[in-house]
Amino acid sequence: MKLLQDRILKDGVFKEGGILKVDSFLNHQMDIELLNEIGKEFARLFKDKKVSKILTIEASGIGIACIAAQYFGVPVVFAKKAQSKNLDGEIYTSTVHSYTHDKEYIIRVSKKFITKDDCVLVIDDFLANGKALIGLMEIIEQSGAELAGCGICIEKGFQDGGKYIRSLGVDLQSLAIIDYDENGNVLFR
Amino acid sequence: MKLLQDRILKDGVFKEGGILKVDSFLNHQMDIELLNEIGKEFARLFKDKKVSKILTIEASGIGIACIAAQYFGVPVVFAKKAQSKNLDGEIYTSTVHSYTHDKEYIIRVSKKFITKDDCVLVIDDFLANGKALIGLMEIIEQSGAELAGCGICIEKGFQDGGKYIRSLGVDLQSLAIIDYDENGNVLFR
Repeated sequence: MKLLQDRILKDGVFKEGGILKVDSFLNHQMDIELLNEIGKEFARLFKDKKVSKILTIEASGIGIACIAAQYFGVPVVFAKKAQSKNLDGEIYTSTVHSYTHDKEYIIRVSKKFITKDDCVLVIDDFLANGKALIGLMEIIEQSGAELAGCGICIEKGFQDGGKYIRSLGVDLQSLAIIDYDENGNVLFR
Repeated sequence: MKLLQDRILKDGVFKEGGILKVDSFLNHQMDIELLNEIGKEFARLFKDKKVSKILTIEASGIGIACIAAQYFGVPVVFAKKAQSKNLDGEIYTSTVHSYTHDKEYIIRVSKKFITKDDCVLVIDDFLANGKALIGLMEIIEQSGAELAGCGICIEKGFQDGGKYIRSLGVDLQSLAIIDYDENGNVLFR
């Protein structure tokens, strides 16, 4: 998606160790016009799927998923990372390792909100090693729902997550896949 | 806002100790059509303010704030609860006590995204004791920005937050204010 790629080049900050900061428009401050274009693009990419629900994970996936959901006409469910008094009843859980926060955490989704009758599209801001996405896919598998696919804003092509998830046969669509050439210059795949 | 009040009566779950669960439509699963009506109502209530930015707090405020932001044409910034490798540079901080999670936590906003030239509208899903809202207002005060007001979906009228924040002269607009009568029946103020 050229609009997103151009924005990454304009406002993204590339740091050592493959770190890319897009906090000025995607995951701390959010440019809602850009999010709308991203939402339209996800709707175009998954137009042949009968998506009944969008699943994301707190926190930075939520805004993207909610704006995108307008183009699908479906509700959003977000997986919670913290145990909460507000999350009771039966839940699906999965364990995820976060490199950003350097810890393992349990993600939780109430069983009420994803059932075997759903066709679930997963949306998130980043895909790197894929641990969060795999956690969300495990929850969908537990529910018996159909996985429509995964829509990602920015995939780090130089990490293994995308390759692994595509090897499972998942319809993974990333709007910008970042690689580096041998001189360390940013390339979009 | 009658639509929200009706939805709370239809799908909200009232529990002992003043707990109200709205996780089927507002803060775990999110009904995006409802969120759009909420966003339009916030835009109507704050139409006389020159809002330049919407501030909310992760996680459940983000979806509501992003949908609402479409009717203001401004970006959303969300305060982060966790220390993150992705949040560096100069930050505003404030300490908040969460009754839901029963702990103190620090909320953080990058100084890049709220400045003295901004007029900031705060949006959140719930107002009870007001601790999160006060934390967000403290951050706005540190920035030197103008506080346009606070837009809340559900205020617990039987807790002190709303009364205290209004006593500060803040333009606080809650779409549904819940009270109980002497027999424990739900009333909207």
